Amino acid sequence: MREVKLSLFGFGNVGRSVARVLLEKEAFFRERYGLRFRVVSVADTTAVVWLPEGVDLREALIVKESFGRLSEWTNDYEVYNLSPVGAVGEIDADIVVDVTNDKNAHTWHLAALRDGKAVVTSNKPPLAFHYAELTEEAGRRGLPYMFEATVMAGTPVVGLLRDNLLGDSVEEIEAVLNATTTFILSRMEEGLDFEGALKRAQEMGIAERDPRGDVLGTDAGYKATILHCLAFHPITYGEARVRGIEGITLEDVRRAVERGNTVRLVAEVREGKVTVEPREIPGESPLAVESHENVAVIRTDLLGEMVIKGAGAGLRETASGVVSDIVKASLRLGG
Amino acid sequence: MREVKLSLFGFGNVGRSVARVLLEKEAFFRERYGLRFRVVSVADTTAVVWLPEGVDLREALIVKESFGRLSEWTNDYEVYNLSPVGAVGEIDADIVVDVTNDKNAHTWHLAALRDGKAVVTSNKPPLAFHYAELTEEAGRRGLPYMFEATVMAGTPVVGLLRDNLLGDSVEEIEAVLNATTTFILSRMEEGLDFEGALKRAQEMGIAERDPRGDVLGTDAGYKATILHCLAFHPITYGEARVRGIEGITLEDVRRAVERGNTVRLVAEVREGKVTVEPREIPGESPLAVESHENVAVIRTDLLGEMVIKGAGAGLRETASGVVSDIVKASLRLGG
Repeated sequence: MREVKLSLFGFGNVGRSVARVLLEKEAFFRERYGLRFRVVSVADTTAVVWLPEGVDLREALIVKESFGRLSEWTNDYEVYNLSPVGAVGEIDADIVVDVTNDKNAHTWHLAALRDGKAVVTSNKPPLAFHYAELTEEAGRRGLPYMFEATVMAGTPVVGLLRDNLLGDSVEEIEAVLNATTTFILSRMEEGLDFEGALKRAQEMGIAERDPRGDVLGTDAGYKATILHCLAFHPITYGEARVRGIEGITLEDVRRAVERGNTVRLVAEVREGKVTVEPREIPGESPLAVESHENVAVIRTDLLGEMVIKGAGAGLRETASGVVSDIVKASLRLGG
Repeated sequence: MREVKLSLFGFGNVGRSVARVLLEKEAFFRERYGLRFRVVSVADTTAVVWLPEGVDLREALIVKESFGRLSEWTNDYEVYNLSPVGAVGEIDADIVVDVTNDKNAHTWHLAALRDGKAVVTSNKPPLAFHYAELTEEAGRRGLPYMFEATVMAGTPVVGLLRDNLLGDSVEEIEAVLNATTTFILSRMEEGLDFEGALKRAQEMGIAERDPRGDVLGTDAGYKATILHCLAFHPITYGEARVRGIEGITLEDVRRAVERGNTVRLVAEVREGKVTVEPREIPGESPLAVESHENVAVIRTDLLGEMVIKGAGAGLRETASGVVSDIVKASLRLGG
């Protein structure tokens, strides 16, 4: 049995879902991998709760769900007001887990790596803007830097491109990487206009209150940028050409359906070229996904065309990717 | 630049395809991974050609394609009449590559591992009958034992189940794992009877002269057994319940098509239970693949349902899996 110390940053929906999986599947991790996870700190934007002997995750979940913030937690615990960089420096951990949406998280990812800690993240901007710096720092130090959940939630497209197909040269990836836009476009196919479909998505918790990241294509653009870094060479989001679905009218969608087609926000990734834009695609194309599914069609020189399809959103589905990376990083650290 | 010594067993269609990829992509392996491969031996059933300084693969391909057997090769090379076990013992190599269809290859896989050599194989019976023994031996010695190309050619379903989804518990896999039966069933949908469809497959080189391994479901059964070992726990082929497509009539296929369905040889893998049998499936099911595609639908507790689809046969497609494993094993040996 090997114990691995985790420092968890972010305790929103995804962070709590990761915590629940770590609790639920304790026996599974022990029996299958000989691993026990000790969560030495949990942080949200209000506080860092830190206990070297291990934070009680059940209690953390109750506090957060009852009071909405970890800063309300006093009983028996040291509650600190540390910045993430400060916390990363202070807290002794094997793996720093970033499930925040901190746009500047690359600073504390780098701090963690320089401090000898592995990093697991579901947070996209660090990768979309600082891929080369982060992966090179990790490579130099022989530390795992893992980001499965940044693209297609837990559906392992990152692992597939990073650790498989190693003899193949990727020629092109076409993908649908944002589930919110698929939801909106599907509702438009049923006759709702863009505003109505967006409102429905927000009511169901599928779109955020500020839906711009999804609707304008930024989220898909981040993910497509990360796929480019994996398949070809590191670039940054600034090099991607991104157009969202905000200009799509009910009429556009209706005409596509009449032709047996469907409109989806499609990412096309070729060497040196990333494009995200709404495209009309045949109804029988592998890109014509529904619901919260994402898909990537990968074309290579040896294998030809392959398809990976699965959940691209959802809390347990995202936790799947984060937790898989935590196990993978733990196994690599161990031997 | 790190040099990795390969000992190649099997110089049939797949072996020669691997050799061609190693030649073609020399610069790619050097630039992308800092790896250079030196093939120290090449063997077919007639001879082992062994040169510690490295065999000229171009010449090996010419000899094999001109004379049909490596034993005709004399010029400058030492040609040995060694059994695989003998050859594994004699030849100094980092990785033993098995692209034969030797049913008893597990004996020399074990010999290689005991000798400190990594093993890469596309040969299914060793895994389908001796999974536990082989992977445990490799585990004890910290050696890579890789078998991506045994299931779905280079489509990385093995890597996906082995090194990804590590936090998920697999609940079920449904898959179409044999392309020859898909070809035969597709031709029957066009009106050819079983015998005619099989003959067509043989003429096109899709089915072997002795087609029993494909038609009776053995090949799919081996692969499904390997998937079970990966997703759950080691079993052997003897525990799989396998029925082939030999009893499917033109009438069965016609009735399925009338209902909007299609007949495919489907593998179902659940914990402790492997079934391979022809099933009628809806035309829109992800299992309704065509041509040389294979597909696996994987259901897990966290991620839900995911699909991986891609080539399940073909020479370059199979070489893709073998070469990816050679790179992966080389990287692991090096670091």
